Amino acid sequence: MTQSPAQTDTYDVVVLGAGPVGENVADRTRAAGLSTAVVESELVGGECSYWACMPSKALLRPVLARADARRLPGLSRAVQDALDVEAVLARRDGFTSDWKDDGQVDWLRSTGADLYRGRGRLTGERTVTVTGPDGQRQVLTARHAVAVCTGSRASLPGLPGLADVKPWTSREATSAKAAPGRLVVVGGGVVATEMATAWQALGSRVTVLVRGDGLLSRMEPFAGELVAEALTRAGADIRTGTSVTSVHREDGTVVVGTDGGDRIEADEILFATGRAPRTDDIGLETIGLEPGAWLDVDDSLRVSGHDWLYGVGDVNGRALLTHQGKYQARIAGAAIAARASGGAVDTEAWGAHAATADHATVPQVVFTDPEAASVGLTLAEAERAGHRVRAVDVDLGSIAGAALYGDGYTGRARMIVDLEDEILRGLTLVGPGVGELVHAATVAVAARVPVARLWHVVPSYPTISEVWLRLLEAYRDA
Amino acid sequence: MTQSPAQTDTYDVVVLGAGPVGENVADRTRAAGLSTAVVESELVGGECSYWACMPSKALLRPVLARADARRLPGLSRAVQDALDVEAVLARRDGFTSDWKDDGQVDWLRSTGADLYRGRGRLTGERTVTVTGPDGQRQVLTARHAVAVCTGSRASLPGLPGLADVKPWTSREATSAKAAPGRLVVVGGGVVATEMATAWQALGSRVTVLVRGDGLLSRMEPFAGELVAEALTRAGADIRTGTSVTSVHREDGTVVVGTDGGDRIEADEILFATGRAPRTDDIGLETIGLEPGAWLDVDDSLRVSGHDWLYGVGDVNGRALLTHQGKYQARIAGAAIAARASGGAVDTEAWGAHAATADHATVPQVVFTDPEAASVGLTLAEAERAGHRVRAVDVDLGSIAGAALYGDGYTGRARMIVDLEDEILRGLTLVGPGVGELVHAATVAVAARVPVARLWHVVPSYPTISEVWLRLLEAYRDA
Repeated sequence: MTQSPAQTDTYDVVVLGAGPVGENVADRTRAAGLSTAVVESELVGGECSYWACMPSKALLRPVLARADARRLPGLSRAVQDALDVEAVLARRDGFTSDWKDDGQVDWLRSTGADLYRGRGRLTGERTVTVTGPDGQRQVLTARHAVAVCTGSRASLPGLPGLADVKPWTSREATSAKAAPGRLVVVGGGVVATEMATAWQALGSRVTVLVRGDGLLSRMEPFAGELVAEALTRAGADIRTGTSVTSVHREDGTVVVGTDGGDRIEADEILFATGRAPRTDDIGLETIGLEPGAWLDVDDSLRVSGHDWLYGVGDVNGRALLTHQGKYQARIAGAAIAARASGGAVDTEAWGAHAATADHATVPQVVFTDPEAASVGLTLAEAERAGHRVRAVDVDLGSIAGAALYGDGYTGRARMIVDLEDEILRGLTLVGPGVGELVHAATVAVAARVPVARLWHVVPSYPTISEVWLRLLEAYRDA
Repeated sequence: MTQSPAQTDTYDVVVLGAGPVGENVADRTRAAGLSTAVVESELVGGECSYWACMPSKALLRPVLARADARRLPGLSRAVQDALDVEAVLARRDGFTSDWKDDGQVDWLRSTGADLYRGRGRLTGERTVTVTGPDGQRQVLTARHAVAVCTGSRASLPGLPGLADVKPWTSREATSAKAAPGRLVVVGGGVVATEMATAWQALGSRVTVLVRGDGLLSRMEPFAGELVAEALTRAGADIRTGTSVTSVHREDGTVVVGTDGGDRIEADEILFATGRAPRTDDIGLETIGLEPGAWLDVDDSLRVSGHDWLYGVGDVNGRALLTHQGKYQARIAGAAIAARASGGAVDTEAWGAHAATADHATVPQVVFTDPEAASVGLTLAEAERAGHRVRAVDVDLGSIAGAALYGDGYTGRARMIVDLEDEILRGLTLVGPGVGELVHAATVAVAARVPVARLWHVVPSYPTISEVWLRLLEAYRDA
């Protein structure tokens, strides 16, 4: 069989992957007047739009709003009954545009970027070959830069026969059309805790199997503790220190064996056990890089040793979060444009072309009930990094705004103060409705606002943000 | 009748008024080891605890949580019915401790301050005479300072016969034991809009009469517009450009006449038409000051021309907000202590003894549906102050986090950027759930964080805080 000769087109910039990160790189290079090609093998909009942030938060939002209402006597009786699960799932489907990408394609085209549908692989320096759905090949050469924005995928453990079980990953967990009767969740991180929260509320009986000794182990210890307590109260069965040793299906039922000798039956099993970079099949070997590895980049997101190659978003492993990938995309796009035009490139800390916030200034919100939100370093991380710090804790239930928010409000905040400069290194908040509070801490950490000035930053009464005052008092009086 | 001779006691500091402001002054002077007397004629805890912030927010919180739930298909049917009004009122009663102050008295005594119940009046330099409920008089002399923290009261217009109508002020509106069938609200500020929102949702038919051309006239114009639209949709009747010209009761019914010739009947009428300082009966004339006037103070809250006299909180008219009064109290307490000990007094801008944030860095949250939150200057205020600024607006409904928050999310944000220094002068947010977002802006305004650094302050996806990114983009692309 003869293959038709590949077409060749030349662009200033070629972007591999049209998730939020690739979209934002293209937006910035197009704004700078650079011709830009974007290659996507699946849906334009990427993991976040269809199988991660958007559908997961659409599933969780009504769960959290119901939890809020349940804490208020004037509403609690009305919302005791189960959620209208069909309505929740239909709303989720709306937020994923029923897994169609027309809207995002329109947006991408409106930037003036050209979209190539198909699998893109590097085939040498500044060269990407796209194999379309029809097998047609197209060679794209980049005058200035290739940006790899292919993201990450769920990483599954090497259990024999696992594929036959058809396990859920984050994709199936966020796009399922109905709640399984029994769901086993393997893992204790963000995906595991969010999906356990959602499906337990939507009708599943959830069992969470965590290898470590708690949930959300990258945050302050109380985050995982408070989320585990709430999940347990909601009816989930959380087993820590537990590894899965076997899994198979018997007459459709998933049977899970653990290192503790447990046998657990379920209708579905979700593996939320980490992520791997989608760099295994993009031709890295053609330019001397290792397929399947995270891309090693500098603060302008440029790959070491390749002045035309950028690795932006999950693929570089700096911070696997949509917002941080978009931040990197804005910076990479600006750096590509500056270098292309021979303009000034500012890669000093906090400069226009340095993703400085990736270092110890990354925010994260976990949409569980209670929510967990953090920015910067935990106490353990700060100490490991060699900072001389003090941690101060505040019981959120003692804040008037929190008590008003809902009866029996339970939560905690921890502020990490660097004792050398008296600036914040990190802040963690756990409690209902705290997700929007963390941004104030992100400003304080990124701008290195001194504690003495934070005393003049008055929180409105009675908001939950008054926790800031209590944290400063706790620091002063410690 | 002979009066028993007055007892005399001497303290380092005498505080007039035991609201949140007086409590915080005493807390700070006690922490500095100064003996402190606190005089209170009503309940310890003050207006905020019993007739303002706490009960109003307790009434509003279930209303806003229901509004949130109504925007979510999986919950909306369950919460269509009216709120359980009795449960809402009972919860409100809990937050006011049924208008008993034992808890607050215990807290005040735990600081080591002495509480004097009765009416306190200045009777000369450094001298306060307390007339107790039994008529007994007690003279308190202050070695270092007298802090006047008597707050403000509702200011009623001079309408003939108004007293006979027994109109509601903020006190009755927040403490009412049942929803009136028909309620007329006079005024368009925070108290008016919050109480209209609460009572309309709790069963009253509310008519709002506003003299000006809109609500919340101290905020950006869109705040009042969005709140008025939502109140109207909720069933309230808002009449702008309308002044009350007469009011009386006929067989118990309130009859209101307006300058437009309207005749409105109601069961109760709330006047939310401004505040007056509670300085008319505290003996200001004995030290050469004018009774009933706002106290003129410097940034350390000291009254001009009286080095021993402080005016803290509402009485100085700088910013009539509990949180700002508490801020002033912390600073005044520290300044009193520093001066008493002969220590260093730092009244430079943003120093430990200067309430610098009172100037153009005051945050406020209005707990209506939608919420309205702001800090710093509006566009009009910034221009009046002579700053060269640019305002950028963002439609909050376009933010993924807002769309997820609730269907049909409607809101708006405006950022005021100073074009000289590229720092923020102000930010206003209007929309459901934005109350906790304003603190990030307060950090940015108070710490003068440059726009270039704000680009590195990454908001978490998908939170409503992503409005920050859109605002920066709007500024960049303007």
